[in-house]
Amino acid sequence: AEVKVAILTVSDTVSSGAGPDRSGPRAVSVVNSSSEKLGGATVVATAVVPDEVDKIKEILVKWSDIDRVNLILTLGGTGFTPRDVTPEATKCVIEREAPGLSFVMIQESLKVTPFAMLSRAACGIRGSTLIINMPGNPNAVAECMEALLPALKHAMKQLKGDKREKNPNHI
Amino acid sequence: AEVKVAILTVSDTVSSGAGPDRSGPRAVSVVNSSSEKLGGATVVATAVVPDEVDKIKEILVKWSDIDRVNLILTLGGTGFTPRDVTPEATKCVIEREAPGLSFVMIQESLKVTPFAMLSRAACGIRGSTLIINMPGNPNAVAECMEALLPALKHAMKQLKGDKREKNPNHI
Amino acid sequence: AEVKVAILTVSDTVSSGAGPDRSGPRAVSVVNSSSEKLGGATVVATAVVPDEVDKIKEILVKWSDIDRVNLILTLGGTGFTPRDVTPEATKCVIEREAPGLSFVMIQESLKVTPFAMLSRAACGIRGSTLIINMPGNPNAVAECMEALLPALKHAMKQLKGDKREKNPNHI
Ligand code: NA
Repeated sequence: AEVKVAILTVSDTVSSGAGPDRSGPRAVSVVNSSSEKLGGATVVATAVVPDEVDKIKEILVKWSDIDRVNLILTLGGTGFTPRDVTPEATKCVIEREAPGLSFVMIQESLKVTPFAMLSRAACGIRGSTLIINMPGNPNAVAECMEALLPALKHAMKQLKGDKREKNPNHI
Repeated sequence: AEVKVAILTVSDTVSSGAGPDRSGPRAVSVVNSSSEKLGGATVVATAVVPDEVDKIKEILVKWSDIDRVNLILTLGGTGFTPRDVTPEATKCVIEREAPGLSFVMIQESLKVTPFAMLSRAACGIRGSTLIINMPGNPNAVAECMEALLPALKHAMKQLKGDKREKNPNHI
Repeated sequence: AEVKVAILTVSDTVSSGAGPDRSGPRAVSVVNSSSEKLGGATVVATAVVPDEVDKIKEILVKWSDIDRVNLILTLGGTGFTPRDVTPEATKCVIEREAPGLSFVMIQESLKVTPFAMLSRAACGIRGSTLIINMPGNPNAVAECMEALLPALKHAMKQLKGDKREKNPNHI
């Protein structure tokens, strides 16, 4: 695959078996249907973890450093409840923040619902892996991907160090 | 009260007695008139401190950890002058950032004045207390509250750990 | 000069002599033509450094602490390629973040190109010096300056501690 994608569902409910994973399969479907626009993307791994910083960090590091996936989407754990810690775990492992991606996701989500202002999602780069926090709501995954698609393929090429991709326009 | 609110005026001028507190009373009035939309909010404490990191931190921690208020609004100290340090003090005490709230306040304030781009306001969560930096200008308090109101009641419920409030929509 | 400006081109290519500096001279021209709106701005220093955190930090600190310039514009190194580290170097040296400036630059740049979401630019204050990361693309420098101009003169006055400039409106 040109672009290897991993999808992490962060949810106590799903992790404990108390409920089905509605976001994960939806995200796989969104990535598959956007594969070409992403430069040839394939989902190479999925996982479910509880809302715990250490568990989230552990798999993000494994997928980045060992499996060397190009893009990780996390689903859920970005809100205000006491258990929502996905952004904190993400900020622990990223080396370079990508606040422009968070900007676009909030800007677009606010057009759908004012509750989007409660998203605490973080985005950033670890090595050559881009990590993007997305909300747990299945519809929001599609909306966020739609907002990011115009630049994600280019982001993937930049991460791979393709010099021709540097500064084609305004970056 | 369902939602306990505390209001902190951060100002050397007011703290030293050299001028009146125009923002504090205005914020109390804004909270009172928005009480129902906030889920039953009451102002349970107000205070004035000088523009000093330690003084700001001390009262934010007391209100969060001991008095367990649900929402703290700070007023002032968010600009570029050498004494403006409210965001720095706030970032010291919050455990989880809430950048979406800052996003909405800047986005809405920019519709009123380009000077809004000079706001350095931070927002975040400590324990189950939400801390929001607002500008010192009395009119700006009302504008910021207006921008946040569509989601603040829901934020308060999430902070209290109400599971039914998790992910009702896109969060 | 009322407002002393320094311009730093961050580029391996330019630094090694492998290509011309197109952004630097363009930024000088933009500052000169905006001089009055900036409150009497003059470019007092320019430099070129490679995409290395230590080199970037070193000159930012020198310009801030020793030469006491009022405004530093960095050009380039804000994207996703492995060598893009200007925001990381900037965040090491600033003492107070100015996220509202980043907000406005992203918001305006997104109107020109979706690739603007890949900007990782940081902005902040060190002592009485404002440091702003801008993209390396020459056209983007003009766009970003255009977006910031309505508030930059006021920012410069606030940084100098002019109390009359505090809170004239909504800050
Ligand atoms: Na916007």
